[in-house]
Amino acid sequence: MGLLGGTGREGQALALRFAHAGVPVIMGSRSSDRAREIASSLCRRLGHDLISGLENREMIRNSDLIFLTVPFPEAAGAIEVYADSFQEGSILVDTTVPVAFEKGQPKYNELPEGSASEFLAGRLPAKIALAGAFKTIPTHLLGDLTVPLACDVFVYSDFDQARERVMAFAGLIPDLRPINAGGLSAARTVERMTVLAIGINRRYKIKTARFRVIGL
Amino acid sequence: MGLLGGTGREGQALALRFAHAGVPVIMGSRSSDRAREIASSLCRRLGHDLISGLENREMIRNSDLIFLTVPFPEAAGAIEVYADSFQEGSILVDTTVPVAFEKGQPKYNELPEGSASEFLAGRLPAKIALAGAFKTIPTHLLGDLTVPLACDVFVYSDFDQARERVMAFAGLIPDLRPINAGGLSAARTVERMTVLAIGINRRYKIKTARFRVIGL
Repeated sequence: MGLLGGTGREGQALALRFAHAGVPVIMGSRSSDRAREIASSLCRRLGHDLISGLENREMIRNSDLIFLTVPFPEAAGAIEVYADSFQEGSILVDTTVPVAFEKGQPKYNELPEGSASEFLAGRLPAKIALAGAFKTIPTHLLGDLTVPLACDVFVYSDFDQARERVMAFAGLIPDLRPINAGGLSAARTVERMTVLAIGINRRYKIKTARFRVIGL
Repeated sequence: MGLLGGTGREGQALALRFAHAGVPVIMGSRSSDRAREIASSLCRRLGHDLISGLENREMIRNSDLIFLTVPFPEAAGAIEVYADSFQEGSILVDTTVPVAFEKGQPKYNELPEGSASEFLAGRLPAKIALAGAFKTIPTHLLGDLTVPLACDVFVYSDFDQARERVMAFAGLIPDLRPINAGGLSAARTVERMTVLAIGINRRYKIKTARFRVIGL
């Protein structure tokens, strides 16, 4: 799997979790030097060499399952720059959340398309299957391998095969249960759940709020 | 506590849970006969007499914490008819979810106001504090006292005291944890979570999906 803009916080956290679960990860960055440097430093922490680094475009050419891990404000730009490089049938997993802060309170950034994932889907070539996942899991927890995640990851896509593949892939992480959240419009719910969790964190003075479905 | 339109499925389920927890419940209905009849039948099931029945307007005059338990399409009409009867400072707890089904798939009924609770708030006199709760708990589970709920109830309101009172009240139900979900606009998230849960129920062939916050 590859990480588009993977040297940021979300990318590093996903790289650690997946590599820790034994999955080879290619970290992409605008700078191949930076990608390799961060990949090496994460590998040293893990004590193996499952994380490698490449310039974003090279990472895309070598991956058919790619996680978009830039912050939301940079997501559309990244798609515009790199979309041509994607292989036919590639899966892009959106992990962004459009959240803003107003007077210290988290606020969902309402988009005319209904959600970040739907906004991004409209900017992607038809050859790429967009899915969404990992939106509701706090980044710092994802990157802290001493903490079992013990929660669910909501996975959605209008492409059934893409959704199933991302679910199977997410299920490689121990103690994380993938949930089939349905089609792309589920993003309207799942992204807002992240903002709800941030609000809960602030009100309860914690940093760990995340979700689990009961009764399943 | 009172139930506005309490003889329907949601009202009966809430009446059973709260009365089972030792809380006196006044079931409201357009017909006082029907309210008394259903209240008696629920009391027989519980083996005590904590549930009584009154015509809606009488129930409102005798309650300062009222749950709105009609289906969403009837909610605005019920508020229009009964709003004048509310006491100054009454709390109305919206439990409705605007969900429709398209080709068998649950779909959130998007409202210009952003959510059912915000839609209803705009139709209420200023003397009534609107809160939202119990939206994400399946009605049939709520009414099945053999099943521990073992989940969270998300409570929101723009009125802090109303939210705190509803949280304390919901906390009387064993094995149900009230979560402070913030202001009224949280309805946009919480109501959609219900639709997500209905979709999960359908995809996984269950009827019990509900939510718990992990890390709190």
